[in-house]
Amino acid sequence: MNQTPLSRLEAGLSTQGLDAMLITDPKHIYYLTGFASNPHERFLGLVLARGEDPLLIVPALDEEAAAAASSVSNIATHSDTDNPYALFERYQGRLGRVGLEKEYVTVARYEQLTTALGAANFEDVGPLLRTLRVKKTPDEVARIRHAIHLIEETLRQGLSHVRTGVTEIELVAEMEYQMKKLGADGPSFDTMVLTGPKTGLPHGTPGERKLQHGDLLMFDMGVYAGGYASDITRTFAFGDISPELKTIYNTVLAANEAAIRAVKPGVTCADIDRAARQVTEEAGYGERFLHRVGHGMGIDVHEYPSLHGQNMDILEEGTVFTIEPGIYVTGAGGVRIEDDVLVTENGVEVLTTYPKELHILTD
Amino acid sequence: MNQTPLSRLEAGLSTQGLDAMLITDPKHIYYLTGFASNPHERFLGLVLARGEDPLLIVPALDEEAAAAASSVSNIATHSDTDNPYALFERYQGRLGRVGLEKEYVTVARYEQLTTALGAANFEDVGPLLRTLRVKKTPDEVARIRHAIHLIEETLRQGLSHVRTGVTEIELVAEMEYQMKKLGADGPSFDTMVLTGPKTGLPHGTPGERKLQHGDLLMFDMGVYAGGYASDITRTFAFGDISPELKTIYNTVLAANEAAIRAVKPGVTCADIDRAARQVTEEAGYGERFLHRVGHGMGIDVHEYPSLHGQNMDILEEGTVFTIEPGIYVTGAGGVRIEDDVLVTENGVEVLTTYPKELHILTD
Repeated sequence: MNQTPLSRLEAGLSTQGLDAMLITDPKHIYYLTGFASNPHERFLGLVLARGEDPLLIVPALDEEAAAAASSVSNIATHSDTDNPYALFERYQGRLGRVGLEKEYVTVARYEQLTTALGAANFEDVGPLLRTLRVKKTPDEVARIRHAIHLIEETLRQGLSHVRTGVTEIELVAEMEYQMKKLGADGPSFDTMVLTGPKTGLPHGTPGERKLQHGDLLMFDMGVYAGGYASDITRTFAFGDISPELKTIYNTVLAANEAAIRAVKPGVTCADIDRAARQVTEEAGYGERFLHRVGHGMGIDVHEYPSLHGQNMDILEEGTVFTIEPGIYVTGAGGVRIEDDVLVTENGVEVLTTYPKELHILTD
Repeated sequence: MNQTPLSRLEAGLSTQGLDAMLITDPKHIYYLTGFASNPHERFLGLVLARGEDPLLIVPALDEEAAAAASSVSNIATHSDTDNPYALFERYQGRLGRVGLEKEYVTVARYEQLTTALGAANFEDVGPLLRTLRVKKTPDEVARIRHAIHLIEETLRQGLSHVRTGVTEIELVAEMEYQMKKLGADGPSFDTMVLTGPKTGLPHGTPGERKLQHGDLLMFDMGVYAGGYASDITRTFAFGDISPELKTIYNTVLAANEAAIRAVKPGVTCADIDRAARQVTEEAGYGERFLHRVGHGMGIDVHEYPSLHGQNMDILEEGTVFTIEPGIYVTGAGGVRIEDDVLVTENGVEVLTTYPKELHILTD
């Protein structure tokens, strides 16, 4: 129980039959060492070799920050005029099977590593890291809660700017302003504010459209704070909306709640998707629910697992993900209601707290 | 002269001895076809094969947007349940040498392509694309000018919030709010506002420090608009500043102007760096100018060329880049003054227009 992510990954060296792993995704390195950075085009890597202490390789200008933050104290540096791959000479010819993140490492870097390490055989350890990250610690859940608190407070404060004639991009600007004022590092993805018929586009882009009476008004947004993400969607009515839009709203809300009730350790990701989809299908809107029900969330706003109808992976305690069913009717409008949830020992805890009943805003 | 970027790249098939090129960086695809998108983890690619029409491969949900924006009309799509690499079966075994961007393509994708295409031999075409993009067309320069106009107007309007006690992150929030209100797509990098001694850190992070009399106040920011970036730095005094800080300011301004005077077709990137550095060295601050003098700018806010002292690449007409010398004195403060410039037929045009003389702000 007291194993760190790093010690659990090191155990993977023998279970995967690897001589070493080289981790280069900065988000994985943050997860494993506590050192957060954006190295841009510079080389950042964590080397785990059997029988040796972990080695963190950082650009020279990050040495001080890495020494202060990283749980790995064995740090090697390279300046902008050094060849960082020269640091791998010590391993030349010694490593038969090396794990790396094949969905992250570029071909250019792969060719450099192949030369530097000799005839090493490379295996993908992306799935192993993804699996480690899926189960959140209490500290990670606390950070996610904080990021959720900031985005819910942003929504509360930003709503005071809702009035007839306000444009989508003005509301985006207000929301992102509130995020920063509240102390978030920034949005965790492009803030989405859509109005009226544009809410009927699941990937619409905020523009100059002005809010008017009878519109739906949809906010999909989140922040990064303390290294973790939040992601919430709420849809409001602005003045009176049509009976059809009310029916759609209540159907999506029922789908959201049905999916939440389905969450517990041992069920599959597909089960959650199906629980929501059953509600929209029974209401006759099955074909208008155009995307998966949700996605994992943590250091990345979109991470493993993906909650779609073909994913038979089993949910386990400690997983955090979104539940965000939606119904989109071209020309009329759409509704999406998104919560962030935690799989608990016996069921689920909904981490988002913002009310979900249809709220009618007015001038 | 009337060649499009796409036709110039196609000409590269024979000069590089390639049977085909596969371009997958969305920024390159925007440059070559006019279709801008963020495919996230989905497959997006442009295939140029000798003697065949260019083929654009897009996720099915982007088909309509691609058809509307792309100059390439031959479009193939794949849905989320398709294997996009199946679209390469038509080329199986036919392509000996294939160009791709080795600094962009991941190992996972490379392995899929190797399987799909048979025994193809892959060459890096990143440098070729980088070279194509360096020379901007009048339309591209007009878009950059617009992005510069938006960030300069942001700075002008945002300065009205400067007052004793305002924090760095409050000013970041104000500036990013103005960007959005003015119609920018968003910041082109993390907006930087630093005050007082924190200006002495070339990579400082905006925080809760409050502005006070006698501080330097530094803004480094830019926007993306219409597919192109801007990037400007201005440093102000808030009330009276020390004689040393004034000397630093005037030295950086002289270095900025010396570097600008050095720009014309035929000189090297290193020459521009040296022109600025000579001024800071003569003033005794050579060791406090801690970074390269600038970087190329266009579709990406940081692109080729890099203007550092070892880069012997020759500047050519149409290149757009930043000139941003800085002097950083730990504990006291720092100054950076950054312009965006265009290499013209006989010299240089400074695209940024915001005044550079020391401006003393007050409450």
